[in-house]
Amino acid sequence: MEILRLDLGDASVSPAAPGRLVGPAGETAAAWAVPEETPVAILLNGESFAVMMATPSDLEDFCVGFALTEGLIETPSDLHELRLAEAADGIVANLVLDPARVAAASDRRRTLAGRAGCGICGAQTISAALPRPPRVRGRVPEAAAVLAAFAAFPGAQRMRSENRSTHAAGYCAWDGTMERVREDVGRHNALDKLAGALAREGRDASAGFVILSSRVGVEMVQKACVLRAPFLAAVSAPSALALRVAGQAGLRVAGLAGEALMIFDPAPAERPMETPA
Amino acid sequence: MEILRLDLGDASVSPAAPGRLVGPAGETAAAWAVPEETPVAILLNGESFAVMMATPSDLEDFCVGFALTEGLIETPSDLHELRLAEAADGIVANLVLDPARVAAASDRRRTLAGRAGCGICGAQTISAALPRPPRVRGRVPEAAAVLAAFAAFPGAQRMRSENRSTHAAGYCAWDGTMERVREDVGRHNALDKLAGALAREGRDASAGFVILSSRVGVEMVQKACVLRAPFLAAVSAPSALALRVAGQAGLRVAGLAGEALMIFDPAPAERPMETPA
Repeated sequence: MEILRLDLGDASVSPAAPGRLVGPAGETAAAWAVPEETPVAILLNGESFAVMMATPSDLEDFCVGFALTEGLIETPSDLHELRLAEAADGIVANLVLDPARVAAASDRRRTLAGRAGCGICGAQTISAALPRPPRVRGRVPEAAAVLAAFAAFPGAQRMRSENRSTHAAGYCAWDGTMERVREDVGRHNALDKLAGALAREGRDASAGFVILSSRVGVEMVQKACVLRAPFLAAVSAPSALALRVAGQAGLRVAGLAGEALMIFDPAPAERPMETPA
Repeated sequence: MEILRLDLGDASVSPAAPGRLVGPAGETAAAWAVPEETPVAILLNGESFAVMMATPSDLEDFCVGFALTEGLIETPSDLHELRLAEAADGIVANLVLDPARVAAASDRRRTLAGRAGCGICGAQTISAALPRPPRVRGRVPEAAAVLAAFAAFPGAQRMRSENRSTHAAGYCAWDGTMERVREDVGRHNALDKLAGALAREGRDASAGFVILSSRVGVEMVQKACVLRAPFLAAVSAPSALALRVAGQAGLRVAGLAGEALMIFDPAPAERPMETPA
């Protein structure tokens, strides 16, 4: 993969926003560091595919991870070229892929938007929107290792230490050692950046576990499974749907509860998913 | 507006997810209430428009609010009919509008996906993605009133009191009295539900302020301005872009800092936005 990076500085520094702090102790002038949020236009072979609102740091990781978790590529080598450039109000990332991959992505998108499968019922649309993550295999780490990773998590979040508001996704070895952390205003973007960072090093999350600063919706389960993580721990709770889909994929989910870790049982497949045709 | 609601129960109750709680005090069987998250397929006149992952409560408010904040309608009376029905793996919401409104929405969508304005640069795509909220007018509430609203906020979040993980958006009178609260696994959805709830009562948020359980990204600024709220307060920080766009629209933004309130200065228009042609 060839990476061209044009006119982009390091935008991971949080700018200071001035204001006044008003409370029981009175009023003072103050300034908060706030995270950057920038439209990133993702083009496939020069054609617009999506615009993501993201913190413009680790953009190479973000683009590779987004392409992986969206199913546009299977490995970083499927991405022939990545061109990053600043535009008037944002950043443009052009991903150069085999034309067949772009055509497949456009087909998937057409299934999701612009036509309802069976008229009023829309069931085909819903079916296309529900993620069907790949099956993952692995073990459940010791709770003490996961709790140790959560204890080390704040110290590994450089941006959050400045702005107290960005999200993070981290990859940890079985003993809880933090291997990689990526941050973003968006929790989905943070996990995509982590996926891209690992993939660019030629590895995945199958030999450890993933921790998140956020809650676990169904899309986070999908991304973790593409990363091949067998275990996903978050500071907040999963949704019921996230647990069902994780259960079907073999991913175990945990949530932090003060000093303890809640490890959810594999959810029964209440609504078994059809195998896509 | 005619509302048809088919076979939908109240899905705002959080189901219990079993597991084991492991911590310094040992291991015990436990169960957590987790929020529901369901694909809601939004159709316009029977054609698929979007699939949102949402908590299936207050769905009428959600659909009306989504249509308002997406610019599909200007008042609830522009929505001729709303049909809600359960499908195999989710919920289908069919919004019946004047065909001209659907055509305009499809045009906007085509600008965002499928073609890049000027080839590689994608600037037109970014420009179309950046919200240009309507200007709002109003005053800044007393910090004590906002702090009182935040103190009352947890007690007004019925779902969160069960599951500790859903987001909420509330509308408050100038003195901090909580007038309406809506909840969802997604913070954008919670604000859309609030917008719909107010609009269905024939009012907006111009005679008070909006509070959020979440951080403030640029899309939250857009939604608050469509609600005509002059003041938006959140438990977490705004992004730099959210502050810029809010400053241009006249919306004042605040963040909670322990027992004090940080009221951000109107942001200078660092990157003045062009008027759309």
